[in-house]
Amino acid sequence: MFQAADWKSLFMIKKYNEDQIIQGIFSGDVNILSRAITLVESRKKEDRVSAGKIVQACLEKSGRSLRIGITGPPGAGKSTLIDALGMYALGQGKKAAVLSIDPSSSRNHGSILGDKTRMQRLFRNENAYIRPSPSSGMSGGVGPATREAVILCESCGFNFIMIETVGVGQGESAVRSLADFFLLVQIPGAGDELQGIKRGVLELADAVVINKADGDNLQRAQNARSIYKNAIMLTQTKEWGWQVPVEICSAQNEVGIDRVWRILKDYQKASESCGFLSRQRKEQSKYWFYEVINRFIQENFWSNTDVHRILSAKEKTVLSGKASPLQAAEDAISELKKL
Amino acid sequence: MFQAADWKSLFMIKKYNEDQIIQGIFSGDVNILSRAITLVESRKKEDRVSAGKIVQACLEKSGRSLRIGITGPPGAGKSTLIDALGMYALGQGKKAAVLSIDPSSSRNHGSILGDKTRMQRLFRNENAYIRPSPSSGMSGGVGPATREAVILCESCGFNFIMIETVGVGQGESAVRSLADFFLLVQIPGAGDELQGIKRGVLELADAVVINKADGDNLQRAQNARSIYKNAIMLTQTKEWGWQVPVEICSAQNEVGIDRVWRILKDYQKASESCGFLSRQRKEQSKYWFYEVINRFIQENFWSNTDVHRILSAKEKTVLSGKASPLQAAEDAISELKKL
Repeated sequence: MFQAADWKSLFMIKKYNEDQIIQGIFSGDVNILSRAITLVESRKKEDRVSAGKIVQACLEKSGRSLRIGITGPPGAGKSTLIDALGMYALGQGKKAAVLSIDPSSSRNHGSILGDKTRMQRLFRNENAYIRPSPSSGMSGGVGPATREAVILCESCGFNFIMIETVGVGQGESAVRSLADFFLLVQIPGAGDELQGIKRGVLELADAVVINKADGDNLQRAQNARSIYKNAIMLTQTKEWGWQVPVEICSAQNEVGIDRVWRILKDYQKASESCGFLSRQRKEQSKYWFYEVINRFIQENFWSNTDVHRILSAKEKTVLSGKASPLQAAEDAISELKKL
Repeated sequence: MFQAADWKSLFMIKKYNEDQIIQGIFSGDVNILSRAITLVESRKKEDRVSAGKIVQACLEKSGRSLRIGITGPPGAGKSTLIDALGMYALGQGKKAAVLSIDPSSSRNHGSILGDKTRMQRLFRNENAYIRPSPSSGMSGGVGPATREAVILCESCGFNFIMIETVGVGQGESAVRSLADFFLLVQIPGAGDELQGIKRGVLELADAVVINKADGDNLQRAQNARSIYKNAIMLTQTKEWGWQVPVEICSAQNEVGIDRVWRILKDYQKASESCGFLSRQRKEQSKYWFYEVINRFIQENFWSNTDVHRILSAKEKTVLSGKASPLQAAEDAISELKKL
C-alpha cells in the first residue's frame, strides 16, 4: 500500500550538484542531459554559474561529432527529413541528437508535441535525443544556449548533431556560426524562387536537398535541382574547393536518404583533410567568445540600479510626449556618462 | 568649350550644411532627402551628430502618414504589389515612399536594379520615392536607420509610406515596431503551409493578401483565402476589435488593388478613432528610445581602448586553443570589471 511518503517521492525532483550532473552527462544519462540543458537555458544568476561550470567541464569531451545545421521554409518537411536521416545515422552506429529551434509563436507556447509526432521513430529510439529549444525573440533563429546544448550533447555521447531552424531569414548566419555543415532543404516550386533572401541563404549552404520528390512532384523536383545547380555554379564556389551538391529526396518514402548521408561523409572527410573543419571551428570559438562578452555587457548595464532610475525617468518623458525618443535618449546618455 | 573647371563642377558633389538639408527636406527635395538618409545610415561619428540634429528637426513635421509594413516570402510578388498599390495611392492624391529592405546577400551588393525593374511605374513618378536600404546582417530584417528614414520621408511630404521586408522569419517583429499596419503577402500554395513560423507572423498581421490570384491560380487563391480565414478565426482577434481581413488580388493584372486600399483606409479610420493608433505609436517611441540606448551601450563599450586591449589578448588565447571560449570570456570579464 502507498504511504504518503511514496507519493511524495514520486513527485520530488531529485536535486543534483554540479559534479553529479557532469558525471551523469559523461555516463550518457539523457535525463540529466535534459536538466543540464534547462540549466544552460536558464536566465537565473545562480543557474548561470552552475551552467558555466558544467559546460566548461564538458568542453574537453566535446567536438567529436558532425554538427549539421538544417534549415528551410515551413512545409519543406525538415522534421520528416531529420527523422529519416537520424534513423539512417543510427543504422551506421551513430548516436543522434536533434536540437530543434522552436520559433513558432511568441504568443502561443512551443510545439514539442509537433516534434514528437513528426520525428516519431527518433523519439522512441534510445540512441536518439530530441530537444526543442525556445528561440529568444529576435536573436536570429538560434536559441541563446544552442551552442552550449551542442557541447553537452556531445559529452553525453551523441556524435551526430542536427540543429534545426525554421525560416528563410537571417537566422541562418547564426546557425552557420555553430554548425560544421549547413544543409538547405527546399521543395519543388514554380521555378522562379531564386530571389531575394534565398540567394543569400544559398551562399551559406554546403548542400541543397530538394525534398518531397515523390509522386507528381518528382519532375518538378528534378527541374528545381537543375535550377539550383545553375544558380550555384553562377554564384559560388567554396574557398576551400567544396562543390555544393544539389540532391533530391523523399524523406516520407525514404528515397535518397543514403545520398544525403554520402554527401555528409564526403564533406566531413574533405573538410577535415584540408584543415577547413578545424579552421572553421576556431572561427566559431572566436564568435562564441564575443557572444559571451556581449551578453555580459548587456546584463552588466541593465542590472545597474542607477541606469534603471535614469532610463525609466526618461522613458516617461517619451510616453507622455514631452520629449522625442531621440531627444530623451540623448539626455539619458549624457546622464549615463556622468555615472 | 569646356574648361577644366566645368568638368570639375560636374563631378563635385555639393556640400550642404545641416540647416540646408533640413530646409531641403521640408521643401520636398528628394535629392536632399536621399543624402539625408545616407547620412542617417552612416556609421561615421561626425555624420551621426549631423544625422541626429536633422532627424530631431524633422520629428515635428513627421507622423502624418500611414506607415505600412509589407512582408511575405520571396516570390510572393511584393514589389509588383507595392508598385500597384503605390500607383493607386498616387491616384488618390497621396505621395508614396517605399523603403525596401534589401537583405539579399551579405556577399553580393544590393539589388537596386531589381527594385527599379519591379517598381517601374513608381520609379518614374515624381510623387513617389523609392529607397532600398541595406539590412545590417543579423539585425532582423529592418535596417538600423529605417525608423529615421520614415521620419525624413514624412517631413519631405510623403504621406503613404511602405516598408518592404523579405523573409518569413524574425524580421517581422522589427517591422511591426515601426509600422502602423502590417500586411502579409502570400501566394496560393499547396494548402498546408500554415505551420511553424508562419503562424507567428500571421499573428502580427493586420491583413493578409493572397497575390497572384490570376489564371490557373485563381481557384487555389480562393482556397488559400478560406484556409487563412479559418486560421485567423481560430487563433486571433486584435485586442481593440480589428477583424483581420484576408483578400485575394493580382498585382500583375491590377485586380483587387482597390480592395486592399479599402482595407488600409478602414484600418486607419478604426484605429484612429479608438485611440489604438496613437497608443501603438507611443509604444513604438518607447521601443525606439531603448534602441538608441542599446546602440549607445554597444558603441561606448567597443570604442574603449582598454576594452580592446583586454579582448584582443583573450581572443588570441581562444584562437591558439589555450583557453576555451567560455574560460577566456570569463577571464576577460573579470579584467573588464576592474577597469
